Amino acid sequence: MAKLTQLADNEVFRAYATYAAIVLLKMMLLSLITVYYRMTRKAVGNPEDTASFGKGDDAKKYLRTDADVERVRRNHLNDLENIVPFVGIGLLYALSGPELSTALLHFRIFTGARILHTFAYLIPLPQPSRGFSWAVGYAMTISMAFKVLKTVLLL
Amino acid sequence: MAKLTQLADNEVFRAYATYAAIVLLKMMLLSLITVYYRMTRKAVGNPEDTASFGKGDDAKKYLRTDADVERVRRNHLNDLENIVPFVGIGLLYALSGPELSTALLHFRIFTGARILHTFAYLIPLPQPSRGFSWAVGYAMTISMAFKVLKTVLLL
Amino acid sequence: MAKLTQLADNEVFRAYATYAAIVLLKMMLLSLITVYYRMTRKAVGNPEDTASFGKGDDAKKYLRTDADVERVRRNHLNDLENIVPFVGIGLLYALSGPELSTALLHFRIFTGARILHTFAYLIPLPQPSRGFSWAVGYAMTISMAFKVLKTVLLL
Repeated sequence: MAKLTQLADNEVFRAYATYAAIVLLKMMLLSLITVYYRMTRKAVGNPEDTASFGKGDDAKKYLRTDADVERVRRNHLNDLENIVPFVGIGLLYALSGPELSTALLHFRIFTGARILHTFAYLIPLPQPSRGFSWAVGYAMTISMAFKVLKTVLLL
Repeated sequence: MAKLTQLADNEVFRAYATYAAIVLLKMMLLSLITVYYRMTRKAVGNPEDTASFGKGDDAKKYLRTDADVERVRRNHLNDLENIVPFVGIGLLYALSGPELSTALLHFRIFTGARILHTFAYLIPLPQPSRGFSWAVGYAMTISMAFKVLKTVLLL
Repeated sequence: MAKLTQLADNEVFRAYATYAAIVLLKMMLLSLITVYYRMTRKAVGNPEDTASFGKGDDAKKYLRTDADVERVRRNHLNDLENIVPFVGIGLLYALSGPELSTALLHFRIFTGARILHTFAYLIPLPQPSRGFSWAVGYAMTISMAFKVLKTVLLL
């Protein structure tokens, strides 16, 4: 295991692993919030899920969309569209040898922006808070991608 | 290439690569199932796709949603929401130096749970089989994430 | 940082990092195209987003779906379903020690296919251009996955 733990000893890689785990956990939290809203709003997406609310035709009415559930699902999809590229590009970035302070700046701003984005989406806060937090996170990932391409480019 | 193959020589990393490839292939299989249902149920998502069923106004009716197609698509989205975090967190976990037996336990249970989840979704099996298999996979990823944070935390 | 930059010195890994960054950036571009269409078609997904078009009941009508916006969103979801597995499996593949020329072939064909796929989706080009470009990219990822499993298999 010697060689592998050298990777985990690198400070930039440790910072990357920490923030990647945090934003992925934050994204996964939306699954629980979706379940919570589906149960409390009684709005499920599959016929077989209505059984928990009752039987027969009466239960069928719970197979429906709900504004709160759909909001969480949009937030979740937006997380997939933004956090997944961060995790992928962030790994390449961490391996491209950036300064620890620069790397931490990118990781912290991205993570802060995505946490703010979730609050802005779910409360919801008036625009442009959601748009702004989305744009800040987006810019961090783009900035890291350009650093990666500048360092490793081999077409 | 010497240094890189050292990574591929590591048993935990090999186990991770094996199970990550399997669950990603399983997720990709849903694309083929979607295509299969779209063709047999004659239900496509884009106007230009109706051409394979006929011409003119007659073909327009195939631009529609179908219960079976939508079920596969929900399954696919659920896979993205759960398998992608597993692949990301699993990599960090494999690099954080866990015991091989503990790592295999996490990877095997997650993979088994997600395969069961797909059967539960597509057959479909009565609840709580789908919910249960989802929760088991979810718990494995959370458990690995906490191991990662405990090992590498650098905020 | 010595050990980490050894990874970035490896040519196959550099090629992987280059193409992974390119396809992830291409995927992220769809977020901007979605925003562009939402603004020009005046079709948003959240009540709080209508404020930029006006106030009160008049603005409510912009909370709607639009064919162009939905097309970009389907393209974006298709990218998540295909580019994310490529990034995950491609990393394992790059670490499994393939020949540089074989690896470049996979990365280049996949990247070209996904760029063509986006043009085919958004213009849109008549089928089977979108279906064909999807299948070519899909086949590249499957091919890499089998190479990974053949090299590292540890169940």
